[in-house]
Amino acid sequence: MMSLLCDDTVYMNRCIELALKGGGTVSPNPMVGSVIVCDGVIIGEGFHERYGAPHAEVNAIASVADQELLRRSTLYVNLEPCSHFGKTPPCSDLIIEKGIPRVVVGCRDPFVSVAGKGIAKLLGAGIAVTEGVLEAACVKLNEAFIKSHTTGLPFVSLKLAETLDGKIATSLGASKWITGEAARMEVHRLRARYDAVVVGEATVRCDDAELTVRHCSGRNPLRVVLDRRLSLPVESKIFNTEAPTILFASSAWEGLEKAGLLRERGVTVLFVREHAGELDLRQVLEELHKHGILSILVEGGSRLSASFIRERLVDKIYMFIAPKLFGGDALSSFAPLGISIPDDAVVLKFETPRFFGSDLLLEAYVQSL
Amino acid sequence: MMSLLCDDTVYMNRCIELALKGGGTVSPNPMVGSVIVCDGVIIGEGFHERYGAPHAEVNAIASVADQELLRRSTLYVNLEPCSHFGKTPPCSDLIIEKGIPRVVVGCRDPFVSVAGKGIAKLLGAGIAVTEGVLEAACVKLNEAFIKSHTTGLPFVSLKLAETLDGKIATSLGASKWITGEAARMEVHRLRARYDAVVVGEATVRCDDAELTVRHCSGRNPLRVVLDRRLSLPVESKIFNTEAPTILFASSAWEGLEKAGLLRERGVTVLFVREHAGELDLRQVLEELHKHGILSILVEGGSRLSASFIRERLVDKIYMFIAPKLFGGDALSSFAPLGISIPDDAVVLKFETPRFFGSDLLLEAYVQSL
Repeated sequence: MMSLLCDDTVYMNRCIELALKGGGTVSPNPMVGSVIVCDGVIIGEGFHERYGAPHAEVNAIASVADQELLRRSTLYVNLEPCSHFGKTPPCSDLIIEKGIPRVVVGCRDPFVSVAGKGIAKLLGAGIAVTEGVLEAACVKLNEAFIKSHTTGLPFVSLKLAETLDGKIATSLGASKWITGEAARMEVHRLRARYDAVVVGEATVRCDDAELTVRHCSGRNPLRVVLDRRLSLPVESKIFNTEAPTILFASSAWEGLEKAGLLRERGVTVLFVREHAGELDLRQVLEELHKHGILSILVEGGSRLSASFIRERLVDKIYMFIAPKLFGGDALSSFAPLGISIPDDAVVLKFETPRFFGSDLLLEAYVQSL
Repeated sequence: MMSLLCDDTVYMNRCIELALKGGGTVSPNPMVGSVIVCDGVIIGEGFHERYGAPHAEVNAIASVADQELLRRSTLYVNLEPCSHFGKTPPCSDLIIEKGIPRVVVGCRDPFVSVAGKGIAKLLGAGIAVTEGVLEAACVKLNEAFIKSHTTGLPFVSLKLAETLDGKIATSLGASKWITGEAARMEVHRLRARYDAVVVGEATVRCDDAELTVRHCSGRNPLRVVLDRRLSLPVESKIFNTEAPTILFASSAWEGLEKAGLLRERGVTVLFVREHAGELDLRQVLEELHKHGILSILVEGGSRLSASFIRERLVDKIYMFIAPKLFGGDALSSFAPLGISIPDDAVVLKFETPRFFGSDLLLEAYVQSL
């Protein structure tokens, strides 16, 4: 039993490894990898390669040279096999048809058309199913997909780069550069893994940021600009054609001619409510969800980061910490949050930190807001 | 050769392990451990146990049952053997007398009466000496001793506990507690390793802190209070008799009767110059050095921490980072440092971070100020 459990873990790890190869190309589908094992030997592997393409299980099964072996194999997959007709036929039907006697699943699919039905179908066909192997890692792998399907909102991450004393710019507003090259490179890799990057008007104005993926391979995420009063110049780099762009402005400014000019440049302009003098961020997220966006990376300044925190919309923070001090007169990483006693602090949970050059990346999940 | 080097590393690591047992009791002497190896077997071990007691090499040699074996053994020691008569006779003489043919040294002793002379004496007697094995670790082990002897100032560490956004108290000044129990326990262990803890008047007034070692075994460090105007009540807990205490005040207030009252309570009251409206911290350090203090742990608030940084007197920072956010209206970990461009930042070097409970301890050495 001990050795079975141990093997299951090894093969599930391999599924996760394979699944990650689909990162950045399968969204809004989940990342899925699958391994087929016969007599302790991996005889087939596959992963979901891009949106609309065959599922991981289909690829894994197709990769097995001697299909007869499937009748005494175990299929491993990090996410519950689907049971419905989507872009492709149900994987659970294929598994049954091939006579695979045992299936090991990392975590259930929250997608309402699947949600346990895939596993039920397998069990109904007499297949032995083991659930929950490396479940936490499998859930984390598809945290954006899962949150999106369970809440109707994208998974929201903030990315900040601060000094050890929590500053993102000096007293004069200078911030180039706080972190080193290796950390900035990792930001580009992060962008490639998210469906959209979100910035506020101030950041675009200040840096004329382009927000594309440049220093690594990977597709450009959707660029989302929050510009309440439609005040940014039409010539801003962020409105170039390097990547698709959505601009959100307040419905109070819906009549403005500029919206038309931006649309001519290929920018999608959407109007949302205001809330406490700012764009209603929840409505922004709902709109992005409607556009098939599972995950966003907010790369704003201290004000935008604080607004997302105050509205209790943040799932995760990527904090790059540079080995530097700027001092108390410099700009804090978050604008005021109105917290007056320590017990009211926003509570996070740290992941294991990693170095990029001399900078530290500390990932933190928001536990309560 | 490969295997020799490798063995040297293993035995030097053991020396460091042994040396650490003297932490908190040998100061102002260095921490030293020694191992004697014959034919690949450890036949003797020793360490410097407390100030005034025999040196590590003496203890290691004495621990060898068959003294004849010394004539074909290697002696390992993390710090260069002494060559002068101090509280005990020179170790290099004893090594020569015992006929030990090879000595492996971690790092040189910066103490002016030793400083290479110990090694020269051994070489002069025909002993084979290998230097610099695990040198960086050996230097770090006695960083306080080395700094003290090379600069005439104690090794200065700051200890702070901040939120991920760099705040040490909420907007209302509340700071109990930012970190959890495990991190606070580690602070007590830190205190026991330092010769003195230093606080400002504001911290004593605010917390009525006692600054003793409570939650772990270890001796109480000297308590140092910086109270420019001699304004703290004589009844403050920090003036109790649990540990020795030095109070520094400005020479402008030398006439005050309170100094006498404090002295009656056993407090050493010293007067120093003022510098930019604060106590001259360099003079404070010089006085502490005269009192045999090799290392201090500054546990002040944002003002005292910033003053030490501004005066370029800090060697190391222990930053406990709690998985929390307080927001931009909370109190920053350092008071203003007057840095206006990123290139002028105080540059640090991070060590590998460690978790204490859910809090992270990030140690950072100051590279430039």
